[in-house]
Amino acid sequence: MAVETIKWVNNSARIIDQTKLPNKFEYIYCRDVDRMWHAIKRLEVRGAPAIGVAAAFGVLLGIQKFKGQDKDKFLKLFYKTCDYLATSRPTAVNLFNMLNAMRGVVEDNPKADVEALKKLLFKKAMQIFKEDQEVCRRMGDHGAKLIKNGMNCLTVCNAGALATVDYGTALGVFYSAKKLNKKFSVYSCETRPLLQGARLTCWELTRQKIDTTLICDNMAASLMGKGKVDIIFTGADRIASNGDTANKIGTYMLAVLAKHHGVPFYIVAPRSTFDLKIKSGKQIPIEERKPEEVTHFAGIATAPKGVKVYNPAFDVTPAKLITGIVTEYGIIRPPYLKNIYETFSTR
Amino acid sequence: MAVETIKWVNNSARIIDQTKLPNKFEYIYCRDVDRMWHAIKRLEVRGAPAIGVAAAFGVLLGIQKFKGQDKDKFLKLFYKTCDYLATSRPTAVNLFNMLNAMRGVVEDNPKADVEALKKLLFKKAMQIFKEDQEVCRRMGDHGAKLIKNGMNCLTVCNAGALATVDYGTALGVFYSAKKLNKKFSVYSCETRPLLQGARLTCWELTRQKIDTTLICDNMAASLMGKGKVDIIFTGADRIASNGDTANKIGTYMLAVLAKHHGVPFYIVAPRSTFDLKIKSGKQIPIEERKPEEVTHFAGIATAPKGVKVYNPAFDVTPAKLITGIVTEYGIIRPPYLKNIYETFSTR
Repeated sequence: MAVETIKWVNNSARIIDQTKLPNKFEYIYCRDVDRMWHAIKRLEVRGAPAIGVAAAFGVLLGIQKFKGQDKDKFLKLFYKTCDYLATSRPTAVNLFNMLNAMRGVVEDNPKADVEALKKLLFKKAMQIFKEDQEVCRRMGDHGAKLIKNGMNCLTVCNAGALATVDYGTALGVFYSAKKLNKKFSVYSCETRPLLQGARLTCWELTRQKIDTTLICDNMAASLMGKGKVDIIFTGADRIASNGDTANKIGTYMLAVLAKHHGVPFYIVAPRSTFDLKIKSGKQIPIEERKPEEVTHFAGIATAPKGVKVYNPAFDVTPAKLITGIVTEYGIIRPPYLKNIYETFSTR
Repeated sequence: MAVETIKWVNNSARIIDQTKLPNKFEYIYCRDVDRMWHAIKRLEVRGAPAIGVAAAFGVLLGIQKFKGQDKDKFLKLFYKTCDYLATSRPTAVNLFNMLNAMRGVVEDNPKADVEALKKLLFKKAMQIFKEDQEVCRRMGDHGAKLIKNGMNCLTVCNAGALATVDYGTALGVFYSAKKLNKKFSVYSCETRPLLQGARLTCWELTRQKIDTTLICDNMAASLMGKGKVDIIFTGADRIASNGDTANKIGTYMLAVLAKHHGVPFYIVAPRSTFDLKIKSGKQIPIEERKPEEVTHFAGIATAPKGVKVYNPAFDVTPAKLITGIVTEYGIIRPPYLKNIYETFSTR
């Protein structure tokens, strides 16, 4: 795909500034953890898997300037860095899972000195980076089996190369299907308020010459009512052990509409997006973002001053509305509690 | 309400430029039929009942400069004016119904001379203008009975004073409930792509001190899933004899979501929005508008160049998803074919 959403370059984390796409393609070089925290917070880097990698790189940024051999001081800095990064966004569990993976390096190597830990943490971050790419391709290949010639697919937000290191989750399914020469088209919901569908997904899909049509989120129902949507694929920010799935606001809407119209509804997400410590979606914290995302565009007011705003960034789709969850290990189908456990318990 | 969306002032039709709200409150003075045609086309005046009045005023603009007593020439101009105005927008039937009401004046007075016809047409247009206000108040009063203290209501687009001469259809229900001192709140769906909910409904409701919260269209499902929506009211652009209802894109989405969550879903519309000549919603023409409404905001691209766009301005909600239709004659409930006929056959 050669999008390179996030990459470790010369002791910095280089990210594509996704707030500027599609009008400008610019890189941001995060050289300290604070810059990375803000990059995650402001959605310059976004998408659950990409946030996970960004967090791992953020840890490297936090510790790389540490001088000396005082392990206590180093560990204090390390844990402080992890805790700080964990406050950037609340919903995508990849952030916490990858920070835990980094913490695991320290915990699994109690005898390592500062230099050794630095090397091991660097190695772990690069492994997280690399695995993300492999995992995306495996998800894409499993999901592509669901796409038949002539299908009209639909997706929301951006679960593509820009949401991962490369390739993507839901969009990875389209890329794999394209490689298999399948003929299909994609409706991209624009995804208010920040228009990740219009700005990012349409940018990605048209670059890859996939037949793409942009719609407003409120048009998806009309399309389904006319029989023009054959299958839906979305990404995920956190999946509970019972299959309840938090994803971009509007995903639950699509799932209810899909149910009403008999359209298959698939989530595409890697193991790192599952939170097996929680029983259901009720335990997933939902980020609420500032009102200005809804009331303004490019600095111009689109609503009267002072109106109240409700702006949750995510919603939770109950497992019963989900046809299947495409993972790197294959497609998990109901009953989810049992099948999610069985898929991951040995891995 | 004192909004005065449209008014006949000094031989011109004065309208509020709704494309500029809420940032600027400006009047447009339409002094010829061409300016009115463009005002309707560009949505400077919009909302089915307001378009109906605008069309009647447009006829006056078309004929008022006619000089002389040649009735054939006058009638040629009159019918040409009506036919021209009918091409401005296709979906809202009020446009066609009000043009037919104007044509009826000519047909019912075959012996009237040019001056007499001018006077009769002026009188008819003013009657249409005045009836719209009375009808809105009657709808509001019928609908207000459905609102109970503590209810959270939801609406889409703008079916308010700005969509009528004054007061509104769906929002008229809220204004009447407010006059009765009922305590309730309203969620206003922003209504992409042109944000009539954010720009116009929030402007109207906050001016009237009604507790209003703005949401993106894709958040309505999440609110319903949390039990935070007790009742939905929307306007309509055309209602078929079986109750199928065309309204702003996203209305069908709300109706399906309401059904899934057991939320009552009401349409509020006057007799002039019914098209009893058509059997079902399948016969309602749906306007598709230009892609730039979706791909640009304030001249700034929000999607990559060249991406395909689907931009229907309306969708059709099947009657089976509608709990009731609030009209100036009371609330029509299923079975609609029978009850719509019985409500209007004697009127």
